[in-house]
This record gives sequence, structure tokens and C-alpha cells, in this order.
Amino acid sequence: MSQGKEQGKGKAQTGISPTRAEDYPEWYQQVVRAADMAENSAVRGCMVIKPWGYALWENMQRVLDGMFKATGHKNAYFPLFIPKSFLEREAKHVEGFAKECAIVTHHRLIAGPEGGLVPDPEAELEEPLVVRPTSETIIGEAFAGWVKSYRDLPLLINQWANVVRWELRTRLFLRTAEFLWQEGHTAHTTEAEAVEETLRMLDVYADFAENTLAIPVLKGRKTEGERFPGAVETYCIEAMMQDRKALQAGTSHFLGQNFAHACGIKFQSKEEREEYAWTTSWGVSTRLIGALIMTHADDDGMVVPPKVAPTHVVILPIFRDDATRALVMPFVEKLAAELRAKHFGGRGVEVEVDARDLRGGEKNWGWVKKGVPLRVEVGPRDVEAGTVVYARRDEAVKEKRSVAARELVDGIVDILGSIQDNLFARAKAYRDTNTRRVDSWEELLAFFAPTSGNAAELAGGFALAHWAGDAAAEEKLKEHKLTVRCIPEAHDGEAGTCIVTGRPSHQRVVIAKAY
Amino acid sequence: MSQGKEQGKGKAQTGISPTRAEDYPEWYQQVVRAADMAENSAVRGCMVIKPWGYALWENMQRVLDGMFKATGHKNAYFPLFIPKSFLEREAKHVEGFAKECAIVTHHRLIAGPEGGLVPDPEAELEEPLVVRPTSETIIGEAFAGWVKSYRDLPLLINQWANVVRWELRTRLFLRTAEFLWQEGHTAHTTEAEAVEETLRMLDVYADFAENTLAIPVLKGRKTEGERFPGAVETYCIEAMMQDRKALQAGTSHFLGQNFAHACGIKFQSKEEREEYAWTTSWGVSTRLIGALIMTHADDDGMVVPPKVAPTHVVILPIFRDDATRALVMPFVEKLAAELRAKHFGGRGVEVEVDARDLRGGEKNWGWVKKGVPLRVEVGPRDVEAGTVVYARRDEAVKEKRSVAARELVDGIVDILGSIQDNLFARAKAYRDTNTRRVDSWEELLAFFAPTSGNAAELAGGFALAHWAGDAAAEEKLKEHKLTVRCIPEAHDGEAGTCIVTGRPSHQRVVIAKAY
Repeated sequence: MSQGKEQGKGKAQTGISPTRAEDYPEWYQQVVRAADMAENSAVRGCMVIKPWGYALWENMQRVLDGMFKATGHKNAYFPLFIPKSFLEREAKHVEGFAKECAIVTHHRLIAGPEGGLVPDPEAELEEPLVVRPTSETIIGEAFAGWVKSYRDLPLLINQWANVVRWELRTRLFLRTAEFLWQEGHTAHTTEAEAVEETLRMLDVYADFAENTLAIPVLKGRKTEGERFPGAVETYCIEAMMQDRKALQAGTSHFLGQNFAHACGIKFQSKEEREEYAWTTSWGVSTRLIGALIMTHADDDGMVVPPKVAPTHVVILPIFRDDATRALVMPFVEKLAAELRAKHFGGRGVEVEVDARDLRGGEKNWGWVKKGVPLRVEVGPRDVEAGTVVYARRDEAVKEKRSVAARELVDGIVDILGSIQDNLFARAKAYRDTNTRRVDSWEELLAFFAPTSGNAAELAGGFALAHWAGDAAAEEKLKEHKLTVRCIPEAHDGEAGTCIVTGRPSHQRVVIAKAY
Repeated sequence: MSQGKEQGKGKAQTGISPTRAEDYPEWYQQVVRAADMAENSAVRGCMVIKPWGYALWENMQRVLDGMFKATGHKNAYFPLFIPKSFLEREAKHVEGFAKECAIVTHHRLIAGPEGGLVPDPEAELEEPLVVRPTSETIIGEAFAGWVKSYRDLPLLINQWANVVRWELRTRLFLRTAEFLWQEGHTAHTTEAEAVEETLRMLDVYADFAENTLAIPVLKGRKTEGERFPGAVETYCIEAMMQDRKALQAGTSHFLGQNFAHACGIKFQSKEEREEYAWTTSWGVSTRLIGALIMTHADDDGMVVPPKVAPTHVVILPIFRDDATRALVMPFVEKLAAELRAKHFGGRGVEVEVDARDLRGGEKNWGWVKKGVPLRVEVGPRDVEAGTVVYARRDEAVKEKRSVAARELVDGIVDILGSIQDNLFARAKAYRDTNTRRVDSWEELLAFFAPTSGNAAELAGGFALAHWAGDAAAEEKLKEHKLTVRCIPEAHDGEAGTCIVTGRPSHQRVVIAKAY
């Protein structure tokens, strides 16, 4: 809850304490808290997403949903509960998801012998139900009923839902027992078409991450060890956070015929043969809010890219009494109306007028910490001169510009666009600076070793290294908390030698620490 | 799956079999099925909401969400799970909701002695978790942390979520174990303000039901027996279905300080006293889709009011070969584009061109059953004449009009508006026709008795009767499957005698059978 102005002298004043360099994980928690985005709940591992955080998610949903619909997908909704036996149908899938899940065993509470309520032994379910950790099996069961003929394919479905994975160590947005996500599930007549769909949705995710969230990402395949349980091939987008760790920001799975066999998704082909369908699934979650924070936030708090900002512009009227208030407020309301008439990123410019009876500094810092792209101050002298003073959240907090109000209104769309572009460029430069070609095991370890200036948490980045590894090689990386993040689809075909196994390799992969 | 054209002669041809008069409950199931809106899932009591049904829900959400935001509410998200002890905090609440709920007792599955998976005895939760049947207690817990001072109030929050109530007898949309809903939760400094909020949201629901869903509703209070468990007062909107039963379409609860006490929602007042907040909650659910069906659908299938229609206009091009196709399709695409450029009910007119290679009759009936407001046919002769043939879903299936294409484009907004108005007027006339003033117990029973023309299911309607009853009187009604649906807020103050107890009464209430 520290505020820049109230901190000790001699040290740079920041809205958030500790800073990223001082204690990165704690900085993250404090940014979430100062922006009032989420909090831990009374239920272990489950978060409460507060209005500012939820509004970010709503804006992400709106854009993504439009992209899904534009690529031919329709939304539907499937049961929260999955019968235990459904999970058991796909061997790797159950191994991956049965371990830590929420299991419903009873359907009634009754008064217990010692007072209070207990699950009624008479109301034990014949078959336990698992709260969905992901929905391949329950959706596959429905698809099996919907698909009869090749004419019913492709089946292109998306679901917005909550899912539960019983995590032991949780962190707001990044890893929680319950989270919100979307899961696309599609079925196709041919392998080629399903692979094409898998890659199309990977492209949609990359497009969304870069052009809406201003998060640069690398696209690629996962190694076998990092694959989705039950998938033939998992593709992902990986982003670099400001502690140089990788964050998997979205995945798209080619499931082959695994789930079609497990769930019985069969169709009669044009040639009147019975065939199994080829399926895909793909998802992004509220984890993206964590990615947004760790890509853009700074030592003063959250920084929200304009394309997903719940509020684009906050106007802070400055007055000291009723007379100045009567002077300032009509000017402010007119300015707000003119700004709201403009459009940015497919919606109207969102303007909030904050006329709360609080100290100006406190209000200003509150909006800095929330990450609103533009703060505008209007005082009595501005009204007389027809000017406003504005500050961009992608610049230093004290950096302010005085311009004619008309100029701000005419330029608002460009200014928001410029902030959006600047955030992307800044994040990309950070990633590029912390990406290095590494040609031996020793170089790899040296890259990730703590340096004099940085704690271990802030060393390293993305290592581009030749790789022809197997499960044992992946284990060796894991001993150093490293993983192959992805095998890029786009590469120059450069030949080399795997830095772990010494085997010949025809491309570099991305190795990093990860969330 | 019967189709009008394929049915036997001598009987009116209908898209749905049985008709409403023949077997109302089965008619309902067949309408849902023929419109492809939802189906039962493999999980007992849980439904799969298919794309056409889900799109209706999305349109409802969009409109309602805008109304909630316009009245100052913000969305947030709270945990799916509620610790058992939280439910126990409010005596009536736990009694109402602990009875039939889904209880999570374990967080891991392991290999069982007989193969397959079993809940791991070592992973039993210390405290069972209940899958939320409603969120007063878990949201109250969060509010207790958020509210410190009167400055933090009012707190106006809404959540879009899934909830679970373990129902024994389920029916698609009307009563399912899992359903989707929104639940508003607000906290206020004074009783008057909380009551005002309760009634404001009741008005929002009534406005939405009548002006968006074209469902006429009565607003009123519930009797004590029908009150939400834990509420001081429950208000509702009640609609009449086509079997003359009442359906509660939305509720708004004044919770007094019950949950503030149970959850510890306290604030420091202006006078620096510690006080408990006054709270409200209010919700509507996917049950509204059931209400929509039973208000508007007819013996040919679903009828969707234009304001929530996923597709407003379906264009059916008619061609017999490549040459006629080449003539028709450009005309159709141009028509579609011109229609899409128009706006109705706050969004663009949604047009689907159905050029599937199916028989024209089959296609036409498919869209009739889905309830699309307007079907437009375009054949080669239409192209030459610059005309189209259209049919309104609120008219007989065979009723078609030939007009200039330009006339349709220019008139589309009026036509959709006219359909919307007509559906409301029709439903209101039906309700009014089947509403009767009843002045004695005998008259009441006679009103609900089967008549020669109608089975018991189709007798009765809304009885307006004087009432000054207590719990015993409500029980007496229940013996006849009747309940007091609501005590209208708007009444003429007419004095009378309670038809059950004979006590003096100063207003009539609505008595009906209900879903």
C-alpha cells in the first residue's frame, strides 16, 4: 500500500514496493493488490477476481470470441461434472488429470452426530464425478452423438467455462485451483484438416497476444515431455516475463484420433465407410491476465494496453471550492462526452471522471497503479485557457503534457494507438535483449547463472540452442529448472549439435525457466 | 423429427408432434430437440446447451449485462466452491440449500484395488466443499473484507456463473442440476437503500422480460412459504406459459442484515459507529430459455423474438443448376449485405444464407423449427423481377409475401419490430384471456378443474383471489398443486375476504399452478 510520495528519500520513489529488481514475486503480488485485480479467497487455491481484473478478462473475451466466430466456431456449454469412467477412457489423459482434481462423492448434507453438517452416507454417488479439469472426454461424448456422417463435419465448437485443477502452490492468475478459460473442441474428417485447424488457432492466439495484449510471443511445438496428456502434438505460444522466465500463454492440441477412439466419435465417409474423426482442442485462460501484468507492469504498478483497458482515459477534475467546481465540471463533462464519441480498437473510448473527494495525489496514484493508459487533469486555469494536462502510463509518472483540449480529442485515437504500439515494442525489445544463442551445455548454465548485479531469479532469458533430446535429456534440463519451451515452427534449418546429447540437430529450440 | 409435409392427411400438418393440445410436456421436449437447443448429457441432471440455445443465452446476457452496468453494477467472479461451514452460518439458508447439493470430499483419484480409479483416502478434504447452489455466503465473506467504511458503500456487484442444485426430476432449461445464471449481490448503508435496489432490479428484470423477451410478467412479492431461504422479502416476476402454468422468471431478494450478520459485513458509519450493512441479491438463469420457448413456440416449433434471435433473417436461395446458381447467388449476397448494414435492437441485423445442398422444403422447415423471425426465398424469377418472397415466423408457415427486394431492405427494421411487438401482444392476450377473478374456494377449484375440451394440464390459468393466508392456508393450496405466485405491488386496494381463511383482505394475489 506504499505510495511514491510517502517513501523515504535517497531512493527512487515508486508506486509499488518492493520493486521488480528487489523482489520480483512479491512485486507481482503487490501490483495485483494495488490495482485491485484479484485476491485470495477463503477457499484454498481459489481466487476472487475483482472488478478491475474481471473487466480485463471481459475485454479479452470480447476480442477472442469475435476471432473464434470469424473462423467459423460456435459457442456451446457442456456439464461441469465428468463421470470418473469418462476420464479413464484415455490412458494418458487420465494419468495427467486424475492426480489432482476435485471429486464430488455425495449429493446431500445432513445433520452430523456432533452438530453441524456431514455428507449423507445414504447420498453417496454410485460413480464419483470429477469437476472438469478440461473437457475433452465430456465433449467427446456429446460429439459422438452429434456426428453421424461426413456432412456433420467439421464440428467447430468453443466453450467459455470455469475449470478446476487441484494445485498445491497457487499464485493469483498464474496458477489457481479454479480458473476461467475458453476451450475450443473441433472434429474433422481428415488428419490434414485437423492439423490445419490446430495451427490456425495457434495463429489466432499469437495474433491476439501480439496485437491485442501487446505481448510478443514465439510459436512452436512442445516436446513429448511437455505435451498435453492425450495429444499427438501440442503447439503453444510462449512469452517472456520481466523476470526473463517463459510463460505459456496459450496451447493448441492436435489430438489425432485418440479421443475419437476413446469417446466413439465416428462418421460415415463419402465412400460410406465408418471412420473415426480427427479432433483438436485449444485454450487460453485467466492466466493471460498474469502474463499481461508481468509483461507490462512497472515499479509504479499495472500498465494496461489500451485495447483491453476497462477505462482508456481517467479525467481528474481539480477544484478547491464550489465556485471552481462549477467552472471545471461542465468543461470536464463536455471533454468526456467528446472523447467517448471516438472509437478505438472496435469499441467506444471509455472515459471515467473521478470527482471523488480525495487528495489529488492519492487519486492520481490510484489510477497509475491501476494502469489506465491516459490520465487527464483539468483545473480552473485549464478551463480558462481551453487546455488539459495529460500523462501517458507508458511514460514516467511525472511526465506531463499541456495541450489544447481540442488537440487531445482530435488526437486520442492516435495517442492510444501509440501507447499500444509502444508497449509491444518495449516488450519485444526486452525479450530480444534477453534472448541468446547458446552453443554448449556450459554456455547454457552460464547464461542462467546468477550474476553480480542480479539475483538468480533475474538471470538468463531465452536460450536458443540446438536440440535433439529425449526424455533423459529433458530430465537433465529439469535438474537446472530448465525446460524446452518450444520447438519453433519458423526456423532457418541451420544444422548443429544437440547441446545435451551431442546428436546432430537441424534447428534450435527455446530453452528457459518457466511459470 | 416429424415434418409437416410428411404427416398423414385429415389432420392439420404441424412441424412438431405431438402438438401442445395433445401432450404439452412432450411438445416442449420436441420443440427443444427440433430447434437443436439443448440435450440431456451423460451426467445425471446436467444438460448440454447446444449452439442455437447458447446463442439465445449470449444475446440475453448482452442485453442484461448492459442494463446492469447502466444501473452502476460491476462484474466480478467468486469461487465455485463454498466451505460447508459458510453455508452453516445462516440457519434458513443452509436448510434451503444443503439438502440437495454436490459435495466435494476428495482432491485426488488413485488406482483402486479392483482396477479403475477411486478417490484417494489420503486426499480427503478436512472440510467438505459444496459446489455453489447460490453465492450469498462466499460473496458475503469477500464483501466483509472489502467494506470498511460507509465510503465503500454501496457495493454493486454481479457475477455470471454456473451453479448446481441436485434436482431429482429434471427438464431441459426449466430444472437442471447445473444451470447458468447471473447473481447480483449488493451491500448498502441503509435499509431503505437496499429495498430500493431490490425493487430497481425487479424493474430491470420486468423491463427485460417484456421489452427484450416479449414475455409479459407480473411483478410482486412472494409469500413467506415461497421466500428465498435467508431473505427478509423475495420479489419476483411471474409469466404465464401456454399450458397456463406460472413460471417464475426472475427473483430479487431483500436480505435485510441476515447475511451481513452471518458473514460479518460491517462498516463504520458517518457518525463513526460500527454498523451492519443491508444486502440484496437477485438472479435470472437459463430457465429464461424455457420461458421463451413456452411463451412463444407453437405447434411448428420454436419462435424466437427478434431482439434475442441469433439469426434475424435466413435467406434460402433456390436454384436447380450451375447457371441458375450463378444468377441467384450474387443477388442473394448483395441482399444479405444490405440487410446486414441495418441495425435492430442495438446490433446489426444477423443474416444467414443457407445454400446447403438440401431439398428446399427440408431447409425451410428446419428454420421454421429453429424459430428464425424471417425466412426469405430467392429464385431465378425473383432475380429477374428484383423481388423476394418472405415469410414471418409469427404467421402461418404457408403465409408468404412477394415484395421488391428494396422494399424488404428498407422495411426490415420495421418488420422485425412488428414481429417483436406481435409476439408480446399475443402472449399478453393469452395471459389476459386465462386470468380470472375468483371469489371463493369453490370457484378456485372449478377454475383449475379439467374441462371437456382440455386435459387437466391445460385448465386454469392465473386466479386473482383475495388472500390473507398463513402457512396452513398455503398448504391447503398445495394439496391442489396450487401456490400463491405473487402478491402484486400494484393493486387497487379493493377490500375482500380471503378465499381460504375467510379473513379480511385488502388485495388480490395471483394463484396458479407453477413450474
